[in-house]
Amino acid sequence: MKATRSPWNRPRAAANVLALMSLIVVGSTAFDTIETPHGNAADCLGGSSTYFSLAARLFTTVRLVSVVGTDFPDAHRKLLQDRGIDISGVETKTGKTFRWHGRYASDMNSRQTLDVQLNTFGDFKPKVPTAFRDTPFVFLANGSPGTQASVLEQMQAPKFCVADTMDLWIEHEREGLLALCKRIDGLIVNDSEVKQLTGKSNLIQAGRAALALGPKLVIVKKGEHGCFVFSNFFHYALPAYPTESVVDPTGAGDSFAGGFMGYLANCDSVSLWNMKRAVAYGTVTASLTVEGFGVERIARADRETVERRYQELQQFVGGA
Amino acid sequence: MKATRSPWNRPRAAANVLALMSLIVVGSTAFDTIETPHGNAADCLGGSSTYFSLAARLFTTVRLVSVVGTDFPDAHRKLLQDRGIDISGVETKTGKTFRWHGRYASDMNSRQTLDVQLNTFGDFKPKVPTAFRDTPFVFLANGSPGTQASVLEQMQAPKFCVADTMDLWIEHEREGLLALCKRIDGLIVNDSEVKQLTGKSNLIQAGRAALALGPKLVIVKKGEHGCFVFSNFFHYALPAYPTESVVDPTGAGDSFAGGFMGYLANCDSVSLWNMKRAVAYGTVTASLTVEGFGVERIARADRETVERRYQELQQFVGGA
Repeated sequence: MKATRSPWNRPRAAANVLALMSLIVVGSTAFDTIETPHGNAADCLGGSSTYFSLAARLFTTVRLVSVVGTDFPDAHRKLLQDRGIDISGVETKTGKTFRWHGRYASDMNSRQTLDVQLNTFGDFKPKVPTAFRDTPFVFLANGSPGTQASVLEQMQAPKFCVADTMDLWIEHEREGLLALCKRIDGLIVNDSEVKQLTGKSNLIQAGRAALALGPKLVIVKKGEHGCFVFSNFFHYALPAYPTESVVDPTGAGDSFAGGFMGYLANCDSVSLWNMKRAVAYGTVTASLTVEGFGVERIARADRETVERRYQELQQFVGGA
Repeated sequence: MKATRSPWNRPRAAANVLALMSLIVVGSTAFDTIETPHGNAADCLGGSSTYFSLAARLFTTVRLVSVVGTDFPDAHRKLLQDRGIDISGVETKTGKTFRWHGRYASDMNSRQTLDVQLNTFGDFKPKVPTAFRDTPFVFLANGSPGTQASVLEQMQAPKFCVADTMDLWIEHEREGLLALCKRIDGLIVNDSEVKQLTGKSNLIQAGRAALALGPKLVIVKKGEHGCFVFSNFFHYALPAYPTESVVDPTGAGDSFAGGFMGYLANCDSVSLWNMKRAVAYGTVTASLTVEGFGVERIARADRETVERRYQELQQFVGGA
């Protein structure tokens, strides 16, 4: 159920207390095999909820709901737990963990999926632990709109709920996605997805049309070109952090979402200014992720590095 | 000959007096036939120097050096003169004016050249009128590096000289272009051109490498994704103005350059802050050009509209 009270411009209050129970993410955990012009990496820890959590934990406590197989090693669980991520919502099912194998083109801007094995993720029916149901900030990582809606049903009174989606659901589960759009506060999509969703070829028109579907906030990710934020109160554009070394773009979008939601959850306020700052922090966490294979770089990031890049980004994009 | 004194961070002084003789552009004048998903237009007034002048005249007096054929109508001359552009450097030669015919793809991001007739522009050997040779701000619109260098030779002591170029010259007149790069203050290119010029596939690396070729300033145009500015003192990114109605992208790059150079010439100063503002004004003039076929929209733009869009752009991109 969506909260009726609006969190917009709500004053910041007791942020540190709330941050202890602030953010939940529901999505995939995976083993990724990645081929890029810089090299290959096999069976990396990946998945949308993993990237999201590893970015968001730089700002707040994260509650993770996902599913893995019996092949999922304790070392990965430890990696997440050591970073303060609550993995008590990660279910272990008999069978294998979701696997993805992809190859990036030479410009790193497009990729080809070579193999997908859904395994235990194939019939993932997320169960939000009772202790997690009061979490105010909710991120529904990419999944079928039906699965995403089933998570929302389990939440007591989410204050700010953002969903990711993809071309597959826009094409094949359009009705479910449109129904979900009326229940969420924010939608995160990439530029081709928002055009596909709305039928508008101009990005500004597409952003406005997506707002009309229900969300108060539409964030359009443009990869190396940064992102656009649309709301009925403001539009906003932010270039990407100027990264010279893009090693592996996998997880950039989920890391962006993690930084964005993590920062907002820690503030416990979604004012215009916090929103702009959150977009900048998401941009920073995405820039860290792409500098290493899999979660390697984002997993060893610290808040000091994040703050330094945030300041650099402000210099880079500062108004005239 | 390039001035030895540096204009960087030179204090703003007597701007209004200097603006009367501030900016010269040398480049093409053309008749363009344009096909877009929004419709077609035949024999529009076009050419790099025309778009540049019509954007720059919003800020300063522009001296235009170009060539046209005997088919060039007085109405076009009047259009330029009525907007304060000094066309005494536009030579009329026996024969026809340069003609270009192009078609845009449905997303407006790529175009196909269907026909080019260089006509009188084919052996354009620009002669800078004596009265124009003291102009401090110089823009060398797209042309062969040899032709661009011949213009520089004719200038007495340019304070700030910026050149545009294209893939043709990068591929076929590389030596001449590299020699030119050592003599200019700024280079304006698009993202594929800067990668081609430097052999770097990462845009940030490419921008740095282009700086190493000589210019103090490298501006990389990314179309709907805005632009990057590289210098040894700062890097800067600005998204495009959020235009909902892109009718015809022809001339966007030259209009950007016109707004950029026009603003700087009017300030008579190229400090960091003026540079950032100039990039924003160039972004605004480009946004006006693309909203009409050919020069239709930029030709009827006024300074009030420019200022309003400049303020909107600041809101759109404001730091967090």
